Amino acid sequence: MQWYFVAALLTLLTSSQGILTTLSQTNGRYKYDYATIPFLAEVFKLLVSSLFLWRECNSPSAPRMTTEWTSVRLFVIPSIIYLVHNNVQFATLTYVDPSTYQIMGNLKIVTTGILFRLFLRRKLSNLQWMAIILLTIGAMTSQTKGCGEAACDSLFSAPIHGYILGILSACLSALAGIYTEYLMKKNNDSLYWQNVQLYTFGAIFNMVRLLWDDFRVGFEKGPWWQRLLSGYTFTTWMVVLNLGSTGLLVSWLMKFADNIVKVYSTSMAMLLTMVLSIYLFHFHPTVQLFLGILVCMISLHMYFAPVHLLIDLPVNPKADSGLLKEVIVENHGEQ
Amino acid sequence: MQWYFVAALLTLLTSSQGILTTLSQTNGRYKYDYATIPFLAEVFKLLVSSLFLWRECNSPSAPRMTTEWTSVRLFVIPSIIYLVHNNVQFATLTYVDPSTYQIMGNLKIVTTGILFRLFLRRKLSNLQWMAIILLTIGAMTSQTKGCGEAACDSLFSAPIHGYILGILSACLSALAGIYTEYLMKKNNDSLYWQNVQLYTFGAIFNMVRLLWDDFRVGFEKGPWWQRLLSGYTFTTWMVVLNLGSTGLLVSWLMKFADNIVKVYSTSMAMLLTMVLSIYLFHFHPTVQLFLGILVCMISLHMYFAPVHLLIDLPVNPKADSGLLKEVIVENHGEQ
Repeated sequence: MQWYFVAALLTLLTSSQGILTTLSQTNGRYKYDYATIPFLAEVFKLLVSSLFLWRECNSPSAPRMTTEWTSVRLFVIPSIIYLVHNNVQFATLTYVDPSTYQIMGNLKIVTTGILFRLFLRRKLSNLQWMAIILLTIGAMTSQTKGCGEAACDSLFSAPIHGYILGILSACLSALAGIYTEYLMKKNNDSLYWQNVQLYTFGAIFNMVRLLWDDFRVGFEKGPWWQRLLSGYTFTTWMVVLNLGSTGLLVSWLMKFADNIVKVYSTSMAMLLTMVLSIYLFHFHPTVQLFLGILVCMISLHMYFAPVHLLIDLPVNPKADSGLLKEVIVENHGEQ
Repeated sequence: MQWYFVAALLTLLTSSQGILTTLSQTNGRYKYDYATIPFLAEVFKLLVSSLFLWRECNSPSAPRMTTEWTSVRLFVIPSIIYLVHNNVQFATLTYVDPSTYQIMGNLKIVTTGILFRLFLRRKLSNLQWMAIILLTIGAMTSQTKGCGEAACDSLFSAPIHGYILGILSACLSALAGIYTEYLMKKNNDSLYWQNVQLYTFGAIFNMVRLLWDDFRVGFEKGPWWQRLLSGYTFTTWMVVLNLGSTGLLVSWLMKFADNIVKVYSTSMAMLLTMVLSIYLFHFHPTVQLFLGILVCMISLHMYFAPVHLLIDLPVNPKADSGLLKEVIVENHGEQ
């Protein structure tokens, strides 16, 4: 399977996620407990991965599986990072408003690039760094409020703690992705075995979180398992299946592609959701959305296009300081 | 003289132009006739160029001067294009509001690129095309209204004629620049002699325009030469000298650099003016301004940086479809 096919599918499913979630509301409210969704998605991913692993185990070539506890215990780390991230996110939102938080959230694109370089020691060309920064700017631009929209005076006027927490949140979000990529690539273990370890911890952590939330409110809504499936409609199940499927695709990309491919997929999904919302939910499009989409498209081309499509000329990399333009003029003259 | 030094100077002076013009107002109004400024700037440029030409004529090596009427008459064409452009601009503004017109005005960056390719047959790499489009987007982004700003419901809701005229206006503006570059580079004539021809027609056309404006209002404000210099302050003279100087720098760039350098200079000047206005005129900065500046900076680097600074790797231009990332991984492995 080609990575760009998986990436395109991830974009479509991630973009459907926002739309399905909105459609799963009844009169603008959730009739079900939204906090149960990630838990069920983890269970779904665990079941699917277990099934595939079982099939692999029964095939002539048995899957590679490292079962030492020293290896298995590493798979709890992404869950721990996400737990810390959720709390930082919660703390950030006490200082900054949701739209500023959403715009700052795009910083995870840049922090992913930085950790990708530092932690996984993957080299990026200057052009690719510029593409990553442009993707961040394009995504941010598309989310800036248009004129006349309400609640904007609070934009970028929060206390400094809010911004520091926002940056920390972007670092944690990137770290979880980078650590997962490290886990998936550190050996040739079967993807499904790696998934089983990852999602087992994921399901446990989600369960503990639900229980913890119940404790905090003194079980006034009853224990979480009584709320599980209550008020679920067909659309709610679609939300669960969709979230689970995007998780499986992300795992695949972490093993066979990388985090940068993932951030491009999810950023493009965010733009696609905004465009679809214009038609589905009568969302009012801004000039910024249009300009932001163009910047992201250029960034995508810059990052992934083969070099000869960008420069299309014989280039002497040893040339010490010739301008691109001069190179073109020279080569043009030689033809 | 290096072209980038001239380009930087042009950016500073163009940016001062907006600020000086605002400072030349008394209580938010012009006490002088602003229409007389371009005429005096043309006269200033003509005087300076004549002086330099006279010095060249008295030097041991006489300047090259083509004095045939078939050549001289071509120098009237930029003036004619600007005359048509002014009228199209006026017509556009009857359909679209000034802020939309200002945002659309950045399309002249793209049209300059297109005419540069078509008319002057200068080749640009795909990366340079992407840089030009990014400069346009960055400039547009910086000018989009922030939330809460008034008079925004009219943005991009004008009749279609307005947009067609806006695009025509961008084409004419680019055409004038491209034609001037063609004139300046078509032979090795002295820059000052070329300037003298250009500015003589410029001064005449500006004079005719002032006269025409007087006719239209039935000379109710008296003939233009009586309004010339009336109400002029020191700042007004600075506006004239500044406008004249930017014109001379543009001529120099047209001969020794090109139109793309000029559009970068003037776009950067627009951003610089906006940043300076925050401090000088308590202009309220938007997130879009910040993001737009970043996009323009990346565009500048993409267009002008030497190729090895962008890709910094031995590249095989004959490689048929290898991804940039793959090239990096391969080369990384070989080290």
